Amino acid sequence: MKRDCYIGVDLGGTKILAGLFNQGLSCIGRAKMKTKAYRGPKAVIERILACVGVLMQEQETPISRIKAIGLGAPGAVDPESGTVLFAPNLPDWKKISLGPALEDKLQVPVRIENDGHICVLGVHRVEFASRPRFLIGIFIGTGIGAGMIIDGKLYTGFNRTAGEVGHMVVQEGGPKCSCGNRGCLEALAARPAIYRKIKAMIENGDKSVLTEIVGEDLEGLRSGDLRKAMKRGDKVTRTVVEDAAYHIGIGVANLMNLLNPERIVLGGGVIDALKDLMLPTISETAHLHALAGTDKGVQITATKLGDDAGITGAAVLASGR
Amino acid sequence: MKRDCYIGVDLGGTKILAGLFNQGLSCIGRAKMKTKAYRGPKAVIERILACVGVLMQEQETPISRIKAIGLGAPGAVDPESGTVLFAPNLPDWKKISLGPALEDKLQVPVRIENDGHICVLGVHRVEFASRPRFLIGIFIGTGIGAGMIIDGKLYTGFNRTAGEVGHMVVQEGGPKCSCGNRGCLEALAARPAIYRKIKAMIENGDKSVLTEIVGEDLEGLRSGDLRKAMKRGDKVTRTVVEDAAYHIGIGVANLMNLLNPERIVLGGGVIDALKDLMLPTISETAHLHALAGTDKGVQITATKLGDDAGITGAAVLASGR
Repeated sequence: MKRDCYIGVDLGGTKILAGLFNQGLSCIGRAKMKTKAYRGPKAVIERILACVGVLMQEQETPISRIKAIGLGAPGAVDPESGTVLFAPNLPDWKKISLGPALEDKLQVPVRIENDGHICVLGVHRVEFASRPRFLIGIFIGTGIGAGMIIDGKLYTGFNRTAGEVGHMVVQEGGPKCSCGNRGCLEALAARPAIYRKIKAMIENGDKSVLTEIVGEDLEGLRSGDLRKAMKRGDKVTRTVVEDAAYHIGIGVANLMNLLNPERIVLGGGVIDALKDLMLPTISETAHLHALAGTDKGVQITATKLGDDAGITGAAVLASGR
Repeated sequence: MKRDCYIGVDLGGTKILAGLFNQGLSCIGRAKMKTKAYRGPKAVIERILACVGVLMQEQETPISRIKAIGLGAPGAVDPESGTVLFAPNLPDWKKISLGPALEDKLQVPVRIENDGHICVLGVHRVEFASRPRFLIGIFIGTGIGAGMIIDGKLYTGFNRTAGEVGHMVVQEGGPKCSCGNRGCLEALAARPAIYRKIKAMIENGDKSVLTEIVGEDLEGLRSGDLRKAMKRGDKVTRTVVEDAAYHIGIGVANLMNLLNPERIVLGGGVIDALKDLMLPTISETAHLHALAGTDKGVQITATKLGDDAGITGAAVLASGR
């Protein structure tokens, strides 16, 4: 049988998404599973394999048709050995030989990269026909990561760890971050920070329709619930989401002042659910904080690939394009 | 007569430095003048010409031996037209046709670039024989600028304004910056911020040997005076300089997390005067705030070119190397 398909896998702190792609890099099917990261690396690798298995079943495609698999992991990665060096949002992931483990089971070549790098690669190669020379992608979900295209190529840096925009300090002495420091962008604007602030406000006595939507304890709160609450005019949600958008705007301005990219694209679960509600504040704050001339002609948009940015980039990686 | 020399000019907010360079890009003489920026662009251009005139006189070299002149300007520059688009620390510099004005008077080709870009170019081409692929230079004086070498080449971005690290917000809501925003690195750690904090502490009743060294009103305070005071164990100076070093360390960490460079080099008047006193705190803070793995093997040093980084880079620019 001819090997004429690719699989792209997006391994996140919350969920695993796998997509089947044809040679033209169009997505022809998806499968999704919870990561259950607390179970540790071995169990998560089993879940990646299970997710790929479900995808192949649903698409009625045998693994023998897969040319290569690409995977984006939320942390520092050594693509040559296929190792995840560390992943702040995946407990106990230190020097995990992920690529070889998957190759061993699936008997297909597996390439891995950092998820921020992967997402911007997907956006650059598949979404933008113009192929901007200088593109930065910022992806906001459980964590905040970035990927950069410089001179038309993926930029990964000296130790291949570039793009850790989530750990850019924008508020010295600010809230504690998972990395141990204070005032990182991630500690101010990623999904857990948003949820934490909402819970604190409600515990403080503020009323919110979120308790109607998901229950008093707010267990199982999701980005989509924030959207529903904002659409119903909920003040608590609006205050917290706009605050997060402001911090992201500061982060975007810092990147514009520093790197003067041609385009900035935003993505990830939080943006995917709330883009029309967050983008005006992000954009306004960013332009307000950009030095004159720096942001001239620079567009800030949400990726049209939405939640598929990761699997698309992973498929691009698999294809070697 | 053979044209076998270059001139490099470093136009700063406080002083103009001009250097004569041989074909091997060794500096064979320097001349220095105050910028007197408050007099406006026309007068400053006259002063650049006067500074070059003094250099030629002192070096007994006729202008007919100069092959080309390079100049670094503290702001956004359009190198193709030789225009300074704007310069936050030079009053009234908006779309000033600096290159053509100098060419007209001197009858020698003039190339201009942003001073941060110029300085890192000088460091990369002249100081580092190893030519690191990813190098960031941060230059701290009246303002804070940066230059980046990415993949061995000078990186200037989409509108050629990259490197504005001085306007990276690291302390949201912090002190007001000359750019109009708050909490920029420059408003926390450049020379004017250091002087302002020292003056405030002394006005508040803190005792400092600086009043002995430069007089009660602290008029004419210079970076070298801070060095003398610190060497004499002055608490006020130490507190303020270490605070500035901390903020710079946060800025360096942000750059390491974001860009994962191979080397970071610090320069500019403040670093030149205080490097041994500031570098330990800068380096410690930066490594403390860098994500694990990001700073592995990354060296943070002060440029050995010292105050000559700007004129050296300008000479490199003039030579086209």
